[in-house]
Amino acid sequence: MSGPRYLALSGGVGGAKLALGLTHAVPADQLCVVANTGDDFEHLGLTICPDIDTLTYTLAGLNNPETGWGRAGETGGFMAALEALGGETWFFLGDGDLATHVERSRRLAAGETLSAITDDFRQRLDIRAAIVPMSDRPVRTTVLTPDGPLAFQHYFVREQCRPRVTGFRFDGAEAAEPAPAFAEALADPDLAAIVICPSNPFISIDPILAVPGIRDALANSAAPVVAVSPIVGGRAIKGPTAKMMRELGLPGTAVAVARHYAGLIDGFVLDSGDAGMADAVRELGLGVTVTNTVMTSLEDRIALAEAVLAFAAGLRRDSMTGTLTASTGPARC
Amino acid sequence: MSGPRYLALSGGVGGAKLALGLTHAVPADQLCVVANTGDDFEHLGLTICPDIDTLTYTLAGLNNPETGWGRAGETGGFMAALEALGGETWFFLGDGDLATHVERSRRLAAGETLSAITDDFRQRLDIRAAIVPMSDRPVRTTVLTPDGPLAFQHYFVREQCRPRVTGFRFDGAEAAEPAPAFAEALADPDLAAIVICPSNPFISIDPILAVPGIRDALANSAAPVVAVSPIVGGRAIKGPTAKMMRELGLPGTAVAVARHYAGLIDGFVLDSGDAGMADAVRELGLGVTVTNTVMTSLEDRIALAEAVLAFAAGLRRDSMTGTLTASTGPARC
Repeated sequence: MSGPRYLALSGGVGGAKLALGLTHAVPADQLCVVANTGDDFEHLGLTICPDIDTLTYTLAGLNNPETGWGRAGETGGFMAALEALGGETWFFLGDGDLATHVERSRRLAAGETLSAITDDFRQRLDIRAAIVPMSDRPVRTTVLTPDGPLAFQHYFVREQCRPRVTGFRFDGAEAAEPAPAFAEALADPDLAAIVICPSNPFISIDPILAVPGIRDALANSAAPVVAVSPIVGGRAIKGPTAKMMRELGLPGTAVAVARHYAGLIDGFVLDSGDAGMADAVRELGLGVTVTNTVMTSLEDRIALAEAVLAFAAGLRRDSMTGTLTASTGPARC
Repeated sequence: MSGPRYLALSGGVGGAKLALGLTHAVPADQLCVVANTGDDFEHLGLTICPDIDTLTYTLAGLNNPETGWGRAGETGGFMAALEALGGETWFFLGDGDLATHVERSRRLAAGETLSAITDDFRQRLDIRAAIVPMSDRPVRTTVLTPDGPLAFQHYFVREQCRPRVTGFRFDGAEAAEPAPAFAEALADPDLAAIVICPSNPFISIDPILAVPGIRDALANSAAPVVAVSPIVGGRAIKGPTAKMMRELGLPGTAVAVARHYAGLIDGFVLDSGDAGMADAVRELGLGVTVTNTVMTSLEDRIALAEAVLAFAAGLRRDSMTGTLTASTGPARC
């Protein structure tokens, strides 16, 4: 592979939208999308990896455009029969989706790595971009609440994010190591940009950052690191990000997200509706660009991907210190 | 439970037809149907029990009437998606059927017995008759061929019964023991009849007989034991029985089946088309009845069940020796 390479860190639905845009903005085979695996879980005896699957289905064009997760045109025969047998039905598994979980679980049990299986699936589905789990070792996000810890999917799906969040734990993270292709991408001298997708910072990106070595690798990368705000006008585009921020005592704003990433990133992408926050982000020592971050159409996804990469290209890091040189500043703001 | 009880030994499709008839011929909660588990197998990481499932779906009225196995109105979303991911698709698993395998596998892994799971499923599906695996320990039928041994489903489904059969092996049988409800039914003083369903003698009934203690229990039971011929006019109603018999050097006839069971059974049920074989069966020391054994409609199933039980009721065993008294003879022939 030659030419510049691009690395994106992503959770599920929101991140996958930008990842899809990125596959159109650069040669897709130069893009590596690293998926959060903190919300993976064992359910019905199967290993389920929601973010990997959302990315895979999205990049393959198989995703359900209404939910953002799952597959389009799914049938529910499995769930209906499972309910009749008294099985657990709080986590919906479509019939086609189930093939991913069954076949992945079978291959994991046979000793293959999650990386290898994920890579084989994406090739079989004609996806040119690499999709890489953050680690081949299990990391499991636990949500801390006043009533005790909750396994992530119990919080997220079974309890519909209702419990108040007091913090998070990423079980297994200390013993994890980056998946080989993730470590390789971070070390690639041709790496042109690292993009933190507009995913939930606490439950989609922080688990990736909790893998030993990743924070240092981002902080010291010669490539610019840019994050796209998942918060627009004080609200999360999708999911519980803003609710979590309030519960954690943080303002539910894009600036608070930028502050969360300060020290790791060089630039921050604000939505046009939050243009007034650009100075506050700049005061964190970050470059800023303002653009439309709400991705409704494929054109939106591609336009945001192009804006993010152009912004990153305008941010030059001092290759010796890994810090932004003063001369570069924000590219578009 | 009071009143006479009935025990049926069954494989899949053909046996399930008669089992359904039996649930209409006697109070269903007095009937215990023991399923062959020799054709169970591990596939895609799931434990699949085809004969238990065929019995369960048939007695629940959920079965596919065209195939005899599987569920009616199934969708194939799982298989289509599995194929796209490069998974093994030679064994069809419908979307609803899959719930049985996933939930059973989960519960087995959690330490429940196959008996307990099977009993819970049948209760949830409002089946009043007991469905009992022959053993809670795995027994796996291996088909011996000139090219080496084949796991049963590889022979039966993947290879479509094409290889020539030289014999069978029931791996695990020596270490198996009858499932508790099977042993209990055999020891029940109120047991009124034991019916060997018109299933394949070699791959559906012999695995059950290979469980230690079962042959002796049948031979010594105070209740009459009757078998229904799966061969009609030299042909198996379904499946490879006749082909197997030829390959094993046996005539593909009902008499040869009766001879296979001689020593264990007291009476044999011939199809009307094979009435001419009654004397040959009688020469084996067995009672004989002749009736229509081809079950097309529900009425056929019930009529055969009633004929089989009436035949059995006419066969009296000497309670001390367990052998037929000469006075009884065939009931209807």
